[in-house]
Amino acid sequence: MIKIDDRFFPSAVKEKVAAYASLAVESLKHLQKGAGVHSTMAGWYNFPQHTGFTLEADLKGFVDNIDQFYDCVVVIGIGGSSLGAKAVFDALTHKYVSSVKTIHKPLLFLGDNISERAFIETMDLLSHKSPFVVAISKSGTTTEPAIGLRVMRDWLKQKYPGSPVSERLAVITDKTSGALRKYAEAKQIPSFVIPGNVGGRFSVLTAVGLVPLALCGIDVHNLLKGADQLFKELGKDGSSEHPVLKYACLRHAAYEAGYPLEIMAYNEPQLKAFCDWYKQLFGESHGKSGKGVFPSELMMTTDLHSLGQFIQEGKRLFFETFLSFKDPFPRRSGVERNLRVPKAPGESDDLAYLESRLIREVNDTAMDGTMVAHADGGVPCMKLALEELNEKNLGYLIAFFEVACAVGGDLLNVNPYDQPGVESYKQNLYGLLGKPGFEKYGEQIKKRLHG
Amino acid sequence: MIKIDDRFFPSAVKEKVAAYASLAVESLKHLQKGAGVHSTMAGWYNFPQHTGFTLEADLKGFVDNIDQFYDCVVVIGIGGSSLGAKAVFDALTHKYVSSVKTIHKPLLFLGDNISERAFIETMDLLSHKSPFVVAISKSGTTTEPAIGLRVMRDWLKQKYPGSPVSERLAVITDKTSGALRKYAEAKQIPSFVIPGNVGGRFSVLTAVGLVPLALCGIDVHNLLKGADQLFKELGKDGSSEHPVLKYACLRHAAYEAGYPLEIMAYNEPQLKAFCDWYKQLFGESHGKSGKGVFPSELMMTTDLHSLGQFIQEGKRLFFETFLSFKDPFPRRSGVERNLRVPKAPGESDDLAYLESRLIREVNDTAMDGTMVAHADGGVPCMKLALEELNEKNLGYLIAFFEVACAVGGDLLNVNPYDQPGVESYKQNLYGLLGKPGFEKYGEQIKKRLHG
Repeated sequence: MIKIDDRFFPSAVKEKVAAYASLAVESLKHLQKGAGVHSTMAGWYNFPQHTGFTLEADLKGFVDNIDQFYDCVVVIGIGGSSLGAKAVFDALTHKYVSSVKTIHKPLLFLGDNISERAFIETMDLLSHKSPFVVAISKSGTTTEPAIGLRVMRDWLKQKYPGSPVSERLAVITDKTSGALRKYAEAKQIPSFVIPGNVGGRFSVLTAVGLVPLALCGIDVHNLLKGADQLFKELGKDGSSEHPVLKYACLRHAAYEAGYPLEIMAYNEPQLKAFCDWYKQLFGESHGKSGKGVFPSELMMTTDLHSLGQFIQEGKRLFFETFLSFKDPFPRRSGVERNLRVPKAPGESDDLAYLESRLIREVNDTAMDGTMVAHADGGVPCMKLALEELNEKNLGYLIAFFEVACAVGGDLLNVNPYDQPGVESYKQNLYGLLGKPGFEKYGEQIKKRLHG
Repeated sequence: MIKIDDRFFPSAVKEKVAAYASLAVESLKHLQKGAGVHSTMAGWYNFPQHTGFTLEADLKGFVDNIDQFYDCVVVIGIGGSSLGAKAVFDALTHKYVSSVKTIHKPLLFLGDNISERAFIETMDLLSHKSPFVVAISKSGTTTEPAIGLRVMRDWLKQKYPGSPVSERLAVITDKTSGALRKYAEAKQIPSFVIPGNVGGRFSVLTAVGLVPLALCGIDVHNLLKGADQLFKELGKDGSSEHPVLKYACLRHAAYEAGYPLEIMAYNEPQLKAFCDWYKQLFGESHGKSGKGVFPSELMMTTDLHSLGQFIQEGKRLFFETFLSFKDPFPRRSGVERNLRVPKAPGESDDLAYLESRLIREVNDTAMDGTMVAHADGGVPCMKLALEELNEKNLGYLIAFFEVACAVGGDLLNVNPYDQPGVESYKQNLYGLLGKPGFEKYGEQIKKRLHG
């Protein structure tokens, strides 16, 4: 379902791919068997067959039985608890889903930062809305969503006095332990499970992503079907020629050849959030021990008028992956809508040669032209090409990047499932704010900051 | 108005700053005199005094005299013609400006890409709206906005039959030449001028940014005042100790020391578009001749849960600039709104130590804690600190980055005003789509792409 085009990757880099092929195949086998580094946290692999399709059925029952009217869904979560749902939602829904009539309910976020302004402005909006809320956190003690849940609970109690919070709130958390599980049990709040063997950034096709997406009206069945198809393909033929292993090897070869940055170029702006998801997946999985490809992006054609100059002629640092959907317009209602460049006889705007052409054709061609131009500028370029931007292809693509990321970790010799570095700033924050147990550490940090 | 804190920049890098100081001072003098590379395209320097305040008065008259009701403003433009207005608008307005009651009218964009889906979905939204449109292009022949203008004109004629397009459209273009100027004259459309000596990425405080912003209800006077203050300061004391020259020298020293990437970290999500503007400014100005610092970003605290791990422990590539507004909540109506962490006695979410504190205090502290953590991880860190996020400080900050960018070009020995590399992909696009004059070139490219 994904075609990989590496003709614009330099031969000198491509030649190195063979050296990584057997390691990539071995890594895939470990992943499939749950061996090596993949022994404890690779529960995302084959998740649709293992749990996903069963969860989907439960989820359908849950959504159908909500008897409170809701006109939007609010996710309280950060990082792996918010990026996946946003990635899928934006890719598949109308850009102005809040303002036009569509089959989807808007998806909002709270507690995905600590901006006081973001909190206040989101609550402003909600005062006109009738939300259903999903709080997502494995521990229940992550600062941002924990604040978000407190703010939201108080607001629900005030807006719907007399109604228990459980009518408009579901939680997704650890099966047995943690603050959020405890809270859900005490208040009889409906809950779903974050599997113990799936980390946040690999969790989009578990309850973490599927619950909010199903509540918004997204077809989660086909998302799972798409991912399942990749796992099935790899079960039958996990050779180094499969595009997913080829992609993992190409990006590793580029890294080893001195290109420590990947630019993910896409030409449908609604894939912006998908790109944010990709950045977390690869950045957090590989960025450790002084290694890793720094993930970056290019929204086409917008950013060609911004970063295009640098990519063409600036410091050589990066390789570029073009993500192309032939038809980026998910069909929502059976009505196909095409937009062509309008005619304007005699106009001097230089567009006569484009008149009556589909705008998507111009957009597609711009991607091809850009790939050739950047390659000529010394940027190793490859393309991942898919057909229609729909649930199934998106599910496939998610699994594709997850597998490439896991295998890439083995090529790089890092554990793709840990994130040892994220504690540093949290400790400083706790120390500076005087969290019990961090007082002494806080004194040191304060001295460094304020003399 | 900006304090620069470089205590967490490594001494070994800071020591190099002295070597660039005199070159930076000289560059500023050239900028002020319009000498050297600044002889033809530095019209943005001192623009408020030279033209801006006069323009502001004209603009007020223009906005006051529009006699059609409009409930949103649509900018047709790309790159320097859209990023600046969006940067300022988002920073100063409500996150949900389209859905809540505010003093501002929403700002929308068309023709800032070639996505057929974006075109169709934006026109969907407009079918419920009553827009005022601003088309911005120096030549009038840039593909994306030229398509946008054709689509919009046809739509206006259909929606308001019998009314001339000039009732709801203004153009901003070259004073005398180009397709858009020609069109405006033929149809008697109100127009404003893109100064010939100001390039797109330096144009936000000319008509390019000010017209749409004023139409939306932004206080453009104070934007200009803020920028003017920086130019006045530099006129009196352009020493290398001024924060703007210090910033230019520090980032150049970091680049020379082997950090080819800058991460701009900000902790108010509504500054996202400002960061996109910064990326164009520095990326397009410095990314040439195989040189330049690649501009990147970190939206705090969201991206700490995504790229935080890489920044802390991944491949060492970057230095980091923390952009801090002490109060990121522009006061809009004289009513101050503070949000504190709600109390929840007995809750096990680990937030007891934060109860009743202002959320902005937690957010501020997270930035300080992060800066220390990343510095400890080997990332050169500095902070640019401002007070309230308002029109005046934002105008000052825009001028600050523009000056730092112009001076930085001299340090790097590149012309910050040209963009020779952006023609490459356009030629390929024209060739592939068969634009007259590019047919032969197109054959070559087609052969490379399709064999």
